Amino acid sequence: MKVACRLPHSDYEIITLGHGGGGRLSQQLISGVLLPKLNNDYLQELHDGAVFPIADPVRLAFTTDSFVVSPPFFPGGDIGLLSVYGTANDLAMCGARPLFLSLALIIEEGFSIHGLEQILSSIRTACDLLELQVVTGDTKVVERGKGDGIFINTTGLGAVLDGIEISPRRIRAGDQILLSGSLAEHGVSIMSLREGLKFDSPLLSDTSALWPLVEAVLRRGGQGIHSMRDATRGGLASALNEMALSARVGIVIDENALPVREEVQGACEILGLDPLYIANEGKFVSLVSPECSEQVLSAMREHPLGRDACRIGEVVAGHPGVVVARNGFGATRVIDMISGEQLPRIC
Amino acid sequence: MKVACRLPHSDYEIITLGHGGGGRLSQQLISGVLLPKLNNDYLQELHDGAVFPIADPVRLAFTTDSFVVSPPFFPGGDIGLLSVYGTANDLAMCGARPLFLSLALIIEEGFSIHGLEQILSSIRTACDLLELQVVTGDTKVVERGKGDGIFINTTGLGAVLDGIEISPRRIRAGDQILLSGSLAEHGVSIMSLREGLKFDSPLLSDTSALWPLVEAVLRRGGQGIHSMRDATRGGLASALNEMALSARVGIVIDENALPVREEVQGACEILGLDPLYIANEGKFVSLVSPECSEQVLSAMREHPLGRDACRIGEVVAGHPGVVVARNGFGATRVIDMISGEQLPRIC
Repeated sequence: MKVACRLPHSDYEIITLGHGGGGRLSQQLISGVLLPKLNNDYLQELHDGAVFPIADPVRLAFTTDSFVVSPPFFPGGDIGLLSVYGTANDLAMCGARPLFLSLALIIEEGFSIHGLEQILSSIRTACDLLELQVVTGDTKVVERGKGDGIFINTTGLGAVLDGIEISPRRIRAGDQILLSGSLAEHGVSIMSLREGLKFDSPLLSDTSALWPLVEAVLRRGGQGIHSMRDATRGGLASALNEMALSARVGIVIDENALPVREEVQGACEILGLDPLYIANEGKFVSLVSPECSEQVLSAMREHPLGRDACRIGEVVAGHPGVVVARNGFGATRVIDMISGEQLPRIC
Repeated sequence: MKVACRLPHSDYEIITLGHGGGGRLSQQLISGVLLPKLNNDYLQELHDGAVFPIADPVRLAFTTDSFVVSPPFFPGGDIGLLSVYGTANDLAMCGARPLFLSLALIIEEGFSIHGLEQILSSIRTACDLLELQVVTGDTKVVERGKGDGIFINTTGLGAVLDGIEISPRRIRAGDQILLSGSLAEHGVSIMSLREGLKFDSPLLSDTSALWPLVEAVLRRGGQGIHSMRDATRGGLASALNEMALSARVGIVIDENALPVREEVQGACEILGLDPLYIANEGKFVSLVSPECSEQVLSAMREHPLGRDACRIGEVVAGHPGVVVARNGFGATRVIDMISGEQLPRIC
């Protein structure tokens, strides 16, 4: 649906404060731009919230994330894809199939409505892939210089698969650590763009929807899947440290087993970044009982998103809360949590 | 719990980009500042999301809102109270008891941690009043000049009361329009603060939790309560226009019946504002079948938040989508939706 017929030309081009005022311009933005992209029966109601029945007993997963990535468009994705996949991936990390999403936009005055439409198209594409719906939303506009283009919050509701129990409390010494694919692609893509680095083939973000792969893992591993975490902000190092800390266990990884693509490794060297600390947006680790780890690994490799999956280490009873990496010569180093900010606004 | 012992002094005072980086500073902010204020069993898990069982059939309400109010502290409230009450009120407008909340912060580098703690205390106070829990959250930090202090998104889940069905589709000609109290206090409080106006007694925002009053209304009116809406951004005029548009009915209100406190009316005259278009944060309209409207009105008046409740008009079959006001002399005027932005960043 074209919106030019509904909004005067000057309002068509950019977002103004009036689009966030709750009056006629807000209504036009909703009916002319947002609804045509996202429409479904719940949103159509235009009520203060969405209401849906839950008929059978279920465990719901509930998670929220704001996305402030700069720039909002990058090789391999944009803030729209990221805001759906990021929250859906967090639901997946709870063992939950994503069901419903809320969408809240904070837009800086002057942002282009064309850019907003592109982002909404990405949101729709991502939702369709996951058979997920945006059922309620909110739009605020802040004055020029009081925001930065667009910030997006999505909050997700999902249904935990029957018989699955994912929790840091279930992590045990001996658990095998499986990584779903190669590291650091999202962060390196954004940093290369910011720094103006050019490569023969562009470095693409790995932004993707993990649920289909996670579902395959859960169906194969069942109760043997103890914990999962996607390696976003702070990279794999932070994900592993958080797990070691909350489960009060030690983690040992094999540094030579970590998959990093050659061009990503090269960019990391130019940028002075350690791939272990770089954000991913389509990779996760699962901590799996040793009995089922081989089966789970082969289930992962059968899926396109998991074809580079590998075992990278294991959980140990020693040094609780500490992650160490062993290199090829048998030496170990502590993989600490990142202390400050390596890459601001990466997601 | 004091946090000074956990964060170095320089980090204690202000938020830095590192607090949003997903590493050690992020963990310190969570464990030293956020958890002590908000702690509960769900948050304690520190997982990517919260998981809770739904045992019996239920209709869930789901709603999201971002809060960008400037300034974040104002007479009668702050962005913390607002962000809990605002979302809980939207759930209430669906006929739902608020149950769970997500909390996502976008903080500008340089914001004071003391200010953040005050806001978190308000969030906790508001949650306790509503017997509501923040069960999952997210914190992002943006560079100085790319945000404005703090923006907060809350997304709420509630359970719709048994036997209650609130929807614009249920609005009928003849429905009585009940308003829960006096108008324009939130917007006038913020505007007076921004303009530096001084009054003998300070003008307080009406920021409040509507659920206890709404529950009384629903228990008295049952299926006779057809629709409800809180009169926030765009004021009562926008709330009524949205209802008239989505239900394709006309609305007639009695301008002389609208309750506005004398000092608020005075401030509106000084500021050149029409109380009908000013945001409220603790007032709602309900559209009620004529058979039960007297009973519902007396139920409202028994509650402290509803003691100024009154009938302000009715739904008519004529002029669908249009709201008109009748004054004391029998003349009518159309109460249009606000066209631009009267009061930016009021909530």
